[in-house]
Amino acid sequence: MSGTKSPFGPQVFTPADASFEQRVRASFARQRVMDTLGASLTSVAPGEVVIELPFREDFTQQHGYLHAAIVTAIVDSACGYAAYSLMPVDAAVLTVEYKVNFLAPAAGRKFIAQGRVTKPGRTLTVTTGDVFAETDAGLKPVATMLATMMAVSHRETSG
Amino acid sequence: MSGTKSPFGPQVFTPADASFEQRVRASFARQRVMDTLGASLTSVAPGEVVIELPFREDFTQQHGYLHAAIVTAIVDSACGYAAYSLMPVDAAVLTVEYKVNFLAPAAGRKFIAQGRVTKPGRTLTVTTGDVFAETDAGLKPVATMLATMMAVSHRETSG
Amino acid sequence: MSGTKSPFGPQVFTPADASFEQRVRASFARQRVMDTLGASLTSVAPGEVVIELPFREDFTQQHGYLHAAIVTAIVDSACGYAAYSLMPVDAAVLTVEYKVNFLAPAAGRKFIAQGRVTKPGRTLTVTTGDVFAETDAGLKPVATMLATMMAVSHRETSG
Amino acid sequence: MSGTKSPFGPQVFTPADASFEQRVRASFARQRVMDTLGASLTSVAPGEVVIELPFREDFTQQHGYLHAAIVTAIVDSACGYAAYSLMPVDAAVLTVEYKVNFLAPAAGRKFIAQGRVTKPGRTLTVTTGDVFAETDAGLKPVATMLATMMAVSHRETSG
Repeated sequence: MSGTKSPFGPQVFTPADASFEQRVRASFARQRVMDTLGASLTSVAPGEVVIELPFREDFTQQHGYLHAAIVTAIVDSACGYAAYSLMPVDAAVLTVEYKVNFLAPAAGRKFIAQGRVTKPGRTLTVTTGDVFAETDAGLKPVATMLATMMAVSHRETSG
Repeated sequence: MSGTKSPFGPQVFTPADASFEQRVRASFARQRVMDTLGASLTSVAPGEVVIELPFREDFTQQHGYLHAAIVTAIVDSACGYAAYSLMPVDAAVLTVEYKVNFLAPAAGRKFIAQGRVTKPGRTLTVTTGDVFAETDAGLKPVATMLATMMAVSHRETSG
Repeated sequence: MSGTKSPFGPQVFTPADASFEQRVRASFARQRVMDTLGASLTSVAPGEVVIELPFREDFTQQHGYLHAAIVTAIVDSACGYAAYSLMPVDAAVLTVEYKVNFLAPAAGRKFIAQGRVTKPGRTLTVTTGDVFAETDAGLKPVATMLATMMAVSHRETSG
Repeated sequence: MSGTKSPFGPQVFTPADASFEQRVRASFARQRVMDTLGASLTSVAPGEVVIELPFREDFTQQHGYLHAAIVTAIVDSACGYAAYSLMPVDAAVLTVEYKVNFLAPAAGRKFIAQGRVTKPGRTLTVTTGDVFAETDAGLKPVATMLATMMAVSHRETSG
């Protein structure tokens, strides 16, 4: 979804902490909202995370589509965990800001959000995310995100 | 929240349709997600809408704060309905895109989202929104949004 | 420009460094691009900076209006210096990211960009900016910005 | 630059108007700012445009790097023309809004901006752009953009 031809192929990242997948999965499990929504973490790779969410009628907007903010919830988490997967073991991740463009109504039986690290950094990590709807006609892009994530010490977040 | 001194005072908008409040309230009532979250529409004025949400532990992120996307949900709806309040009677509103900056952890007993029209337009309306947490120490800003809303005919949205 | 009624009045900031105006003016003077464009710094207050730019035909886009990126240049600098005005004496400021909405074609004899701090922070400062065109019919909003600025040590920027 | 692995390969677009390259080049030639900056249009394909700019000391910020807004100028134009390349013959293109993340200081002898269509539309087109610096150590990403472009009739823009 992120365009046509890029001068760079896929980036390969080396995680700072070998137990990154375990840390991502443990943090995801603590996100009450993901459980409430019924979202699941389907893939965790260094700098790339996929989250899926079945359609939920109780989270729709006025026209019967999944609400934009619920679409945002899964791609924000996918981007945040993509950044987190490359952070050192004692870091926590916070969303500084995000921008989302909505490409089509969120109609489908399942929504797949992929978050990818565009540029890792000691303090700030830039990420890109896409959300696709699974429909009878195949995968259809519904949203794209550009987001800034921040590494903070655990102390700062639990204060 | 939106800064210090602006060269312009508050804008005054004249709605295209006198029944704007009724239309906003009817559309809000059709948003299943707002009911599921427990959000309520507390103020509807031409070009300005306020939505409130009590804290919900089942919508928190990994550190126990309200998830960024739930904060986004109420301010997106406040901005969308602020734009919708100025649209003609046969229009529907869609979120084209938004950007949100998170200013502080979403801790508090209640969250208040205010959406305001910055620039109305026939097709596109630019809106600004702020979210505040009600805490023992008073109102505290937690997020600010800049969003683009689009007027579409009812036909296009119910297709 | 930033909306109608805000629950908060203008914020008052206390600068960390009393010589903030001198630091802002010295840094502005080192921005070769501001001199090349013919922009000038017309107001420096704690957390708020105004930059002006006369219309320049050599910086227009294909329809004869000032190019969006030149409009962005002055409001980015106004926001960056608004943030910088509140930073400690040994800090430098970098733009992490910005989002700009264009509200009207940039037609006018002069453009006035106001940058304001929305939320100051030790590392990140969130700012809001507006650009107005001076026309025969008065001031007219042409763009609005929401931006994240970062304080870094001088060492990091001059490397 | 736009991430690691996408579920979709490069998109292929069919232009609505076979003379798209000629239209893009004619419009670019009318952008006085591109000539003033010394930028050139190096590639025009359906839904994808590349613009290059040699380093210019007179467009630097306070630390001697190319100013963020000049980086923005070339990637905004690349994205705008990428969108324009797919529009019908009687349309003009306007930038509705953009968001840019700055990934590294804009140091290098040349800057290459690539704009790509993410989602074309009758009224709105969503685009993604990247800017790279050409350095002795190879191409280095300096910025990434997510932008909304709008098709308008020529009449509306020349008013």
